[in-house]
Amino acid sequence: MGRDRPYLISMSDKVNLAAKLALFSDHFSPRTVATLNDYKVDVVKTHGEFVWHSHADTDDFFLVLKGRLEIQLRDRTVILGEGELFVVPRGVEHRPRAPQEAHVLLIEPRGTVNTGDAAGSDLTAVEQTI
Amino acid sequence: MGRDRPYLISMSDKVNLAAKLALFSDHFSPRTVATLNDYKVDVVKTHGEFVWHSHADTDDFFLVLKGRLEIQLRDRTVILGEGELFVVPRGVEHRPRAPQEAHVLLIEPRGTVNTGDAAGSDLTAVEQTI
Repeated sequence: MGRDRPYLISMSDKVNLAAKLALFSDHFSPRTVATLNDYKVDVVKTHGEFVWHSHADTDDFFLVLKGRLEIQLRDRTVILGEGELFVVPRGVEHRPRAPQEAHVLLIEPRGTVNTGDAAGSDLTAVEQTI
Repeated sequence: MGRDRPYLISMSDKVNLAAKLALFSDHFSPRTVATLNDYKVDVVKTHGEFVWHSHADTDDFFLVLKGRLEIQLRDRTVILGEGELFVVPRGVEHRPRAPQEAHVLLIEPRGTVNTGDAAGSDLTAVEQTI
């Protein structure tokens, strides 16, 4: 629990993703379940449309665990089913949306704001660890 | 494909993990399927015992996609089923093993050697992108 790793959560136990996802029900509010060096590993439930945004300094990793997630880009839409991942390159505008609820694994640098350059949106989430 | 991203693979398409895993059959030989900033996202098939090793400079992320993976630590064994992840903290000796074949997602900094401080083992793998 050194000062250099302020977000460190217990790494002594494995993480069951489904069990973590069962702990909450709100949408577009990621929960951090593990850390990997300076990155956080989050799970999130999505339903409906997020906001258009981009991250100037980081790629954005999505892995669908359950359901279907659509990631709109300005020129096309990437549709992800279970067991499919996509990395939005840094700087690329995108809008995730899910017609039905989907469960998604996210990996990004600690401190990354979920809404990127649209920070201040009603959808901007506070980091929470579970 | 800039020089600053020498390992960049196409990010234009989504990655179906099961489809990537169907492309090879050897064990303990990770394939890189995506990159995230300076990290690589690998899939690997495991069967049998790996070598004891540690990574001095990085944590080591394992997410089981199929089957069961045991990660031996010096004082205990973490047993991961499908949908379960574990992050081995940097510097901690560990030995993955799988009594039956398992499929695993790995995330680690580019250039990380799979056998860590046991580099030079017969199990040391060359990085391959698929």
